[in-house]
Amino acid sequence: MNKIYVNELKNYIDKEIIFSGFVDVVRDKKWVQFIILRDSTGKVQATVEKSVEENKNMVDLISTITRDSVIKVIGKVVKNEAVKLGGIEIIPSNIEILSLAEELPFDYNNLDGVNIDTRLDYRWLDMRNEKNTLIRQVESALTQGMREFLYKENFTEIHTPKLIGTASESGSSVFEVKYFDRLAYLAQSPQFYKQMALAGGLDKVFEVGPVFRAENSNTNRHATEFTGFDLEFAHIDSYEDVMNLEEDLLIAGLTKVKELYGDKIKELFDMDVVIPTKPFPRMDLQDLYKELHDLYNYVIPEHDIGDTNAETEKLIYKYAMEKYNSEFMFVTGYAATKRPFYHMRKEGILQGYDLIWRGTEITSGAQREHRYDELVKNAEEKGLTNDVKFYLQFFKYGCPAHGGFGIGLDRLTMLLLGLSSLKETQFLFRGPNRLEP
Amino acid sequence: MNKIYVNELKNYIDKEIIFSGFVDVVRDKKWVQFIILRDSTGKVQATVEKSVEENKNMVDLISTITRDSVIKVIGKVVKNEAVKLGGIEIIPSNIEILSLAEELPFDYNNLDGVNIDTRLDYRWLDMRNEKNTLIRQVESALTQGMREFLYKENFTEIHTPKLIGTASESGSSVFEVKYFDRLAYLAQSPQFYKQMALAGGLDKVFEVGPVFRAENSNTNRHATEFTGFDLEFAHIDSYEDVMNLEEDLLIAGLTKVKELYGDKIKELFDMDVVIPTKPFPRMDLQDLYKELHDLYNYVIPEHDIGDTNAETEKLIYKYAMEKYNSEFMFVTGYAATKRPFYHMRKEGILQGYDLIWRGTEITSGAQREHRYDELVKNAEEKGLTNDVKFYLQFFKYGCPAHGGFGIGLDRLTMLLLGLSSLKETQFLFRGPNRLEP
Repeated sequence: MNKIYVNELKNYIDKEIIFSGFVDVVRDKKWVQFIILRDSTGKVQATVEKSVEENKNMVDLISTITRDSVIKVIGKVVKNEAVKLGGIEIIPSNIEILSLAEELPFDYNNLDGVNIDTRLDYRWLDMRNEKNTLIRQVESALTQGMREFLYKENFTEIHTPKLIGTASESGSSVFEVKYFDRLAYLAQSPQFYKQMALAGGLDKVFEVGPVFRAENSNTNRHATEFTGFDLEFAHIDSYEDVMNLEEDLLIAGLTKVKELYGDKIKELFDMDVVIPTKPFPRMDLQDLYKELHDLYNYVIPEHDIGDTNAETEKLIYKYAMEKYNSEFMFVTGYAATKRPFYHMRKEGILQGYDLIWRGTEITSGAQREHRYDELVKNAEEKGLTNDVKFYLQFFKYGCPAHGGFGIGLDRLTMLLLGLSSLKETQFLFRGPNRLEP
Repeated sequence: MNKIYVNELKNYIDKEIIFSGFVDVVRDKKWVQFIILRDSTGKVQATVEKSVEENKNMVDLISTITRDSVIKVIGKVVKNEAVKLGGIEIIPSNIEILSLAEELPFDYNNLDGVNIDTRLDYRWLDMRNEKNTLIRQVESALTQGMREFLYKENFTEIHTPKLIGTASESGSSVFEVKYFDRLAYLAQSPQFYKQMALAGGLDKVFEVGPVFRAENSNTNRHATEFTGFDLEFAHIDSYEDVMNLEEDLLIAGLTKVKELYGDKIKELFDMDVVIPTKPFPRMDLQDLYKELHDLYNYVIPEHDIGDTNAETEKLIYKYAMEKYNSEFMFVTGYAATKRPFYHMRKEGILQGYDLIWRGTEITSGAQREHRYDELVKNAEEKGLTNDVKFYLQFFKYGCPAHGGFGIGLDRLTMLLLGLSSLKETQFLFRGPNRLEP
């Protein structure tokens, strides 16, 4: 229909156009009807003079339009300084109702009193809240920025199978699938297959796709399905190369978000999109323990030694801001016992890192162990040799040195917008008690 | 390590560089050793003079290097007209073995006699065949081109859940997942959720992600998991708008492939990447039946009337080439009984189409039914009202007119490169008897 979008209207002053969109509200005054219309780019007012003879049928029709109905308007775009929405309005010559809305179960513009489960039950209404629309747009822009950076760096996008024959890799539980006369499992990460692609001769790969975790925990920060942004690349010297690439990747993503939606994020979320500068501060875990103790009187609990926990991550953020004015910090020197067997160790030192952003771990990255004998040794140490038998084969016939990481896209978006829950952040949240809609 | 890639070497003539890659072959001559090295961008020769005193250790090391081992070379890039690989060679000053390869189970450069199942068992070796490497690069470029077009058109990328609460939509069977104390199912398509996003106020959405089909058929053209490229957009007048967009999308994808890999595809697959011109020919099914009958003496079998089948699709390709010199043809006028309930009908006429490329259907697209009452009627007619109850709700509270389609990315890549099997095309094929590696 060659619909003109709200953000394009300024280019059509005094021109006849077609507009289609949701009805935000109809204000039926004595002499005039105002319809506020909405699309994904903004809002515009359509104004109908009741006294104009030719408007009679239109005026009657407008009086039947319910909130959130979708209508099609043919009309002229005119300038009008008195109009709040951009100083522009549409003067319709014809209106058609495309979809008449029933009464909404709640007001998505005022979600304060609405239960999160009701909101999720009616997610397509909840999404109409402009903050929630923006969440989707921001996640898309973030992915776009990161992907464009990787294309520029000659990464190949791959699609690894989510149906797998062996339950393996991490401690978190895995979903079982009835697969004809046997069982399959849902992949918890594309880790092994990213590495397989490098053994297969692709030097740089990435994937954006679903990952599945059968964890029966009902928190705001755990989902059974979420979107992973994973990459892996060959010909590195150390995990420093991996950290360097992650810096560039995040800068590219955040820059795209700021460019496309920085103002809107400021307006709706009162948040600044801060583009970090390179290099992000990098610290060894032992040094951090010492600093957190000296500055904040914090002592890491026995069972978390060699690792970080939620509290440490918050303090690391505080410390990174105070000392480096940085929202990000790379932490190195984790204990090998606290990390997967496929992270490389050199003389016992784990060649990996975590990246903390705004008080939350967003990545575990590492140089991977590409040497078959070392890898077998690491797997044995964790008692995994049988589970990862198929994976170990990838390294027998030549494999370049390599490393990589994964980022939870939903979590990244959540932190970027200062949200507190994946339920609000994900397009459609999935948890132990939530498979609908 | 600041590795220089093969396709960058020409910028480093007479410079010292670091190179890392697979060893294609070592040729140990009387006076000299040639190592052919390989990365994802090409091949290069490294040349070591045996008579040079400083080379002694290196010469010994080289004699131990097996095929497909990965080595790191420090050396000087020099011009040498006598060298076949780009008139360039590397003169190493140091070589290090990063990964010593065992003897390969088969020669991936000569796959003719190798069973496809053996190839899939060792997919990471099979992939090293340069045609198979190119398949991955081409699929990635195709996706990149299409995605970049959609970003330009302000589409939002979404990630819809693959775990769903109700088995629904299409006739093909669905995988069951044990989901804590209940069952979940794996999504056969993101169709319903794409539409939900539009009802939620996003005007244009797309998704690239896995789709699952529990079909127990062991053919080269069916996989239980493959990658769907799906989009949906609002504010259309008819399915003509959808066809127009699909033309632009495919042209963008194919243009990117031709730009990045056109020459390589010609060299390795002896195929031309043909960029189609707009508009693609469009024909009504009844007119096509008549033409196929008159020209090729073909009569559609009774049970396929109102639809196409594999044979018709091949003839349509022949006809499109002969009559329009087009590899593509849009076919309209399918019977509503042969298409899903959510395709719009106007006065009984289905508002959808199939797109045939090189003799195979690559898309079913349509304007969707956005009018709640009509949609309920269509669902009832197909006996689906209960199964799609949750979906019908999306249309009760206002929904714009919209349409869209899905493309199987693997199938598109297969046709583009003239391959005959998804087993060869997919990164890791999944079928009833294949869940590994």
